[in-house]
Amino acid sequence: MVTTERAAFLDATDPLAAYRDRFVGADTGLVYFDGNSLGRPLRESADTLSGFVGGEWGGRLIRGWDEGWFDLPLTVGDDLGRVVLGAAPGQVTIGDSTTVLLYKAMRAAVAAARPGRTEIVLDRDNFPTDRYVAAGVAQECGLTLRWIDVDPAGGVTVDQVAEAVGERTALVVLSHVAYRSAWIADGPAITALVHDAGAMVLWDLSHSGGSVPLALDDWGADLAVGCTYKYLNGGPGSPAYVYAARRHLETLTQPIQGWIGATDPFLMGPTYTPAAGVRRLQSGTPPVLAMLPLRDMLALIEEVGIDAVREKSIGLTAYAIELADEWLAPLGAEVASPRDPRRRGGHVTIVHPAMADVTAALWRRDVIPDYRDPGGLRLGLSPLSTSYAEVAAGIEAVRDELGGR
Amino acid sequence: MVTTERAAFLDATDPLAAYRDRFVGADTGLVYFDGNSLGRPLRESADTLSGFVGGEWGGRLIRGWDEGWFDLPLTVGDDLGRVVLGAAPGQVTIGDSTTVLLYKAMRAAVAAARPGRTEIVLDRDNFPTDRYVAAGVAQECGLTLRWIDVDPAGGVTVDQVAEAVGERTALVVLSHVAYRSAWIADGPAITALVHDAGAMVLWDLSHSGGSVPLALDDWGADLAVGCTYKYLNGGPGSPAYVYAARRHLETLTQPIQGWIGATDPFLMGPTYTPAAGVRRLQSGTPPVLAMLPLRDMLALIEEVGIDAVREKSIGLTAYAIELADEWLAPLGAEVASPRDPRRRGGHVTIVHPAMADVTAALWRRDVIPDYRDPGGLRLGLSPLSTSYAEVAAGIEAVRDELGGR
Repeated sequence: MVTTERAAFLDATDPLAAYRDRFVGADTGLVYFDGNSLGRPLRESADTLSGFVGGEWGGRLIRGWDEGWFDLPLTVGDDLGRVVLGAAPGQVTIGDSTTVLLYKAMRAAVAAARPGRTEIVLDRDNFPTDRYVAAGVAQECGLTLRWIDVDPAGGVTVDQVAEAVGERTALVVLSHVAYRSAWIADGPAITALVHDAGAMVLWDLSHSGGSVPLALDDWGADLAVGCTYKYLNGGPGSPAYVYAARRHLETLTQPIQGWIGATDPFLMGPTYTPAAGVRRLQSGTPPVLAMLPLRDMLALIEEVGIDAVREKSIGLTAYAIELADEWLAPLGAEVASPRDPRRRGGHVTIVHPAMADVTAALWRRDVIPDYRDPGGLRLGLSPLSTSYAEVAAGIEAVRDELGGR
Repeated sequence: MVTTERAAFLDATDPLAAYRDRFVGADTGLVYFDGNSLGRPLRESADTLSGFVGGEWGGRLIRGWDEGWFDLPLTVGDDLGRVVLGAAPGQVTIGDSTTVLLYKAMRAAVAAARPGRTEIVLDRDNFPTDRYVAAGVAQECGLTLRWIDVDPAGGVTVDQVAEAVGERTALVVLSHVAYRSAWIADGPAITALVHDAGAMVLWDLSHSGGSVPLALDDWGADLAVGCTYKYLNGGPGSPAYVYAARRHLETLTQPIQGWIGATDPFLMGPTYTPAAGVRRLQSGTPPVLAMLPLRDMLALIEEVGIDAVREKSIGLTAYAIELADEWLAPLGAEVASPRDPRRRGGHVTIVHPAMADVTAALWRRDVIPDYRDPGGLRLGLSPLSTSYAEVAAGIEAVRDELGGR
């Protein structure tokens, strides 16, 4: 088969091919197209966790807090900033869930907005939790939501944002990579024009971080959040991260005033004063154990380099589109992700009315994509753990299943 | 030595003595008096975590969400309710941090309070994060805080609460076991009188759960939160829990409107509707990996029975007080915890002006208590992982250090 040969060639010439063996289960026959929802674990993370139980936790016990745990959200945050986000040290912290951090960041931004600014701008295809949190914050703070309608196979454009923002804008909330289409919003251009309108922008990086290079400091970004269980392989429900630009750190306040976000947590004084720096965005006790697999993955991404990761990501998604055009388009399926790799993140969505049933059939044969209504088969191609042969085998299975309908 | 013989006798006749071997590090010479701050890990939790990486996470991948992960906060919550909290199923969920859950629970209670109720009642010795969160919620919701002053060696009494509550009370926020003195507040009596005043009570169970039997349903409790890294051995920064009585579940709302707290998260619809039941108190993706050590510990507590745990806890703290009276009182130290075991939780605080320095010296000789200003040496005697010999050796070390000053 020509295609199998092509996949074999692509794998043979892939400079990152060998990294795939670092992940659990890469040697099984399973085709995993859902690394954009839950990344495969690194093999070493099993030892990291059991070693932590017997070592740092069981051996150092409470002393661990003085020996690095207390600062772990900030030190891992700095690693994440350097390796993935394009953020200088002191602007990122790890903890909570993406949802809780979205809440804190939106409340912080709204509290910082100039008087008379009554609108939060977002697009209808933003991820549900972003939209739900924004609706809640708008309601409690007396703001209104201004919605941008987007092309489902694309995403929010610079022009659309320019049209939506103005003197009433308090905050713009956007996903950098759209969770359905993989559209990459223009981070620097949108950030600049939101600033021109006198507002702040909050980027959700959940579908970018670890897959698409980011340069938050260069963009002049204000606030960003993201999850760590997708391309950062932190494990199911691993903690999230938040970025706040240094220029905002002395004035930002958030409503969940916990002891770990206070100036001196162990003074246990009568009143809360927000800590200096990004620690003021923390609230409760840092999730030390739950951060460990993330740290393993950050070390690997640093070893490989995020630009090399991105190059492979583009290779994988381009190949998936090539096969979808050749095999699935004749069966009525359509690629619903940008064809321009500069505007496409790490996954590819293919739509067909039968995709819900096709997904169920694929799962039964150990091909695991994701499904998103309406009719979207989502192929999340986690760059370091996915091979070209896996892409070919999976899309061949889609063809089989779609062809029989 | 008489005392060593007595400790040996107490260990020899302790029906739970053998359980100590289930914990990492119990076979070392270290004296650990801080299980009320961070519990020792169960040995089996190392295998649980590494097995999860290679098995459920690495093998089932995204399918795990359909195969139990999604409901894990509720199923582990039900376990916690049955084994530890005295709560029937469907009223407890695991996730977030204690601080974030305090915020959600306080906001929910304030939103449910009758009009004209403008006060949150709490005591000055409540844990800092409880006080800080309450201050933040009061500020943003236009309420005031009403403070109860407490005896530092005791805690808030029924009479004090009766005096503080009235027609202006929206919510009372109390710790069930005080973090300094170990005073056990009268859960059922206080709950009843707060209800008589037309308000709700939010219990912080962080220092009770897993050590002191609880009966939230019998108390008629409204809301409760707690952490899982103390007597529940969940690991540093493990997720917290929240209880909401069934009668409140259809009306309670909380402000962090995330997808996992919505009716149908995977419908990803345009608007947020709170889920039926206690899931409405969730916000972001459940911390699956981070819940696993807690689950191991709950199985052990269920095997032993919380009443047997409590019996040993009383034995350990009574012995610590006996030794403190015999050895430390002559050196000027005083027990600052209730002497009545019915009012004393799982730790004992001993005060002396030199205790900050003593604590540092003890740490250097591998005796690990906690220190809380002013002058409080806190001996947290986690019932299943602490021996009577450990209590004797540790307090002997305190005597040595205190005697030399």
